[in-house]
Amino acid sequence: MSSPAAEPADRDNVFALRPRPAAPPRSTPPAPLWREAVGRELREERRRSGRTLSDVAGAAGISLPYLSEIERGRKEPSSEILEAVGGALGLELVDLTARVTRSLARERATRSPLCLAA
Amino acid sequence: MSSPAAEPADRDNVFALRPRPAAPPRSTPPAPLWREAVGRELREERRRSGRTLSDVAGAAGISLPYLSEIERGRKEPSSEILEAVGGALGLELVDLTARVTRSLARERATRSPLCLAA
Repeated sequence: MSSPAAEPADRDNVFALRPRPAAPPRSTPPAPLWREAVGRELREERRRSGRTLSDVAGAAGISLPYLSEIERGRKEPSSEILEAVGGALGLELVDLTARVTRSLARERATRSPLCLAA
Repeated sequence: MSSPAAEPADRDNVFALRPRPAAPPRSTPPAPLWREAVGRELREERRRSGRTLSDVAGAAGISLPYLSEIERGRKEPSSEILEAVGGALGLELVDLTARVTRSLARERATRSPLCLAA
């Protein structure tokens, strides 16, 4: 009979001395969607520059609740809205996609099995 | 009376010895929108891997005409559709945003005034 893989069995014999953190490594959330990733970057940039939702929404020509939904990744911004909000924050599309890329790459690194082996 | 800015006047006195190229440097198109930039990358990856619209649309669970519209930047793909099409091509979102960033950065470089001065 073939024996089960050694690794999972070994892991079963490890007892935690402290309670596990709230988010156990094996249940990391899936990679974010585009609207979630880009919404996060927009919110971060707005906060970094110390501006309010009302200010940026006004400059972009959209409503405050709509901007808030975009920042939380709950509404899918059209490319034109994305350009308007980015423009209101002084960000070109390329700046925005570069930030999203960096952020997603960092997240992917923490999700990667290589990280568990390190 | 104030004199007009020197630069435009100087430029008016310069006569071209050869006809101007088809696309004069001053009328470069504006930076592409997100859906245009990402559509282009999707199309490029599909062609690079030698796959048909029909094949990729089927794998992504969308119609062929819809994929074609997305590739040409005419339809705004939702984040879920983007994930499905990227997935059908073996691309994660981070790969896609990285490619879009590189492509937009190259374009920005050609649009930059530094390029005209070189």
